[in-house]
Amino acid sequence: MISVVIVGSGNVAQNLFHAFQNSADVTVKQIIGRNREHLAFVQDNALISTEFTSDISADVYILAISDDAINSVGESLKNAKGILVHTSGATPLDAIKYAKRPGVFYPLQTFTKGKIISFHDVPICIEATNNKDLETLTILGKQLSKNVVEIDSVQRKTLHVAAVFANNFTNYMYTMGSEICTEHDLDFSLLKPLIAETAAKLNTLTPMQAQTGPAKRGDQKTLHNHLQIITDKHQRELYTLLSNAIKEKHGKKL
Amino acid sequence: MISVVIVGSGNVAQNLFHAFQNSADVTVKQIIGRNREHLAFVQDNALISTEFTSDISADVYILAISDDAINSVGESLKNAKGILVHTSGATPLDAIKYAKRPGVFYPLQTFTKGKIISFHDVPICIEATNNKDLETLTILGKQLSKNVVEIDSVQRKTLHVAAVFANNFTNYMYTMGSEICTEHDLDFSLLKPLIAETAAKLNTLTPMQAQTGPAKRGDQKTLHNHLQIITDKHQRELYTLLSNAIKEKHGKKL
Repeated sequence: MISVVIVGSGNVAQNLFHAFQNSADVTVKQIIGRNREHLAFVQDNALISTEFTSDISADVYILAISDDAINSVGESLKNAKGILVHTSGATPLDAIKYAKRPGVFYPLQTFTKGKIISFHDVPICIEATNNKDLETLTILGKQLSKNVVEIDSVQRKTLHVAAVFANNFTNYMYTMGSEICTEHDLDFSLLKPLIAETAAKLNTLTPMQAQTGPAKRGDQKTLHNHLQIITDKHQRELYTLLSNAIKEKHGKKL
Repeated sequence: MISVVIVGSGNVAQNLFHAFQNSADVTVKQIIGRNREHLAFVQDNALISTEFTSDISADVYILAISDDAINSVGESLKNAKGILVHTSGATPLDAIKYAKRPGVFYPLQTFTKGKIISFHDVPICIEATNNKDLETLTILGKQLSKNVVEIDSVQRKTLHVAAVFANNFTNYMYTMGSEICTEHDLDFSLLKPLIAETAAKLNTLTPMQAQTGPAKRGDQKTLHNHLQIITDKHQRELYTLLSNAIKEKHGKKL
């Protein structure tokens, strides 16, 4: 049995709390948040604290808070005997090096307010300063996911950059598609099966193999026609830049 | 019962053939392809023809071929009494206006070689020049999908542009994520659950609502750190352009 204290009341904290509550081998001993109202998802009031220090003894203290709060909030727990971890992709372990046993427990996923997700496939990227702590974090991670991986701070930072492309920038492409639909009185929902299948293709193909479209084919006629439709300056700039990039990547002469 | 002739042997032809074969109310009377070997997915040899003219009488002739072949290949079927449709998002109905009854039957989806997909959720965008033909194409579409929509050539062209953002450019973001992983000895598979959830979020949120990340938050520190990691000139240019676009869209001052 591993005991944990969760610090935070946001999407990550809420999802971790829910997942650990459903795990037979993890006890959540406390959940700490500045604002009691934000912890309404915790039904057992006895678990709630609004004090950012913890007298509770636990194996792992999890900082599930925004990146810029990790250093300062973590410091109030620096004397804890358990492992103190943060859950951030962009933050090095060193940000909490004042802890007796600093670590990282980074679930590589995007979380949505009010949505409880399954961690089963979510990579849990862990880091610690000694093998014993790595082992504890592995056991804890395995309670949530089949995929627990040791990733150091440098690799995690790079992984986070890749995640920005795969998630943030991808979502921005959806935004552009949605805007173009709205501007022309088309229902964006028409694109949703396409979007789902675009993601699903990666189960069998690499993104290089999965690439299709006029730029990939070097189909100048369609590219030209599309640019006649796109009137927004920013959309045109993006369309041209990305089409040229795809052409170049797939060996079509510009 | 609607009878069809399919012209083509690529991914769309193969998927349509398979779906119609499984429909009680559609008969595929012939499938035409230049190269018999490419029609190996058709088990009944009697259905196969390598001649691009058809003596077979059918309700609908479906050109499931590349955009630049539609005009010329379609012409050989211009005397057919049935409806002659193409399946292209980027091509106007006028490309086959020589037909007695021209039309469009555009499944808005990305198709993968060798992969049979379900059409159940796929929008079938139809166009025709009279109500009777529209009705026939609707009935045919409903055999495949719950979502048959009438979309004219102008709207379809716009929808195709939006689809380029949602599919082609999205896949290019995956490619960038994959490249960054490979360059740093990270397994791209780590990003797949993130990619799946990024798409799944659209079931409950608009892309504007779903946007997260350092650019959305105006988190200059992380943006700066990321640019220190990205050494490839092209990746840097994309990262900067897209981050600035997201910041601007979400009202963060540059």
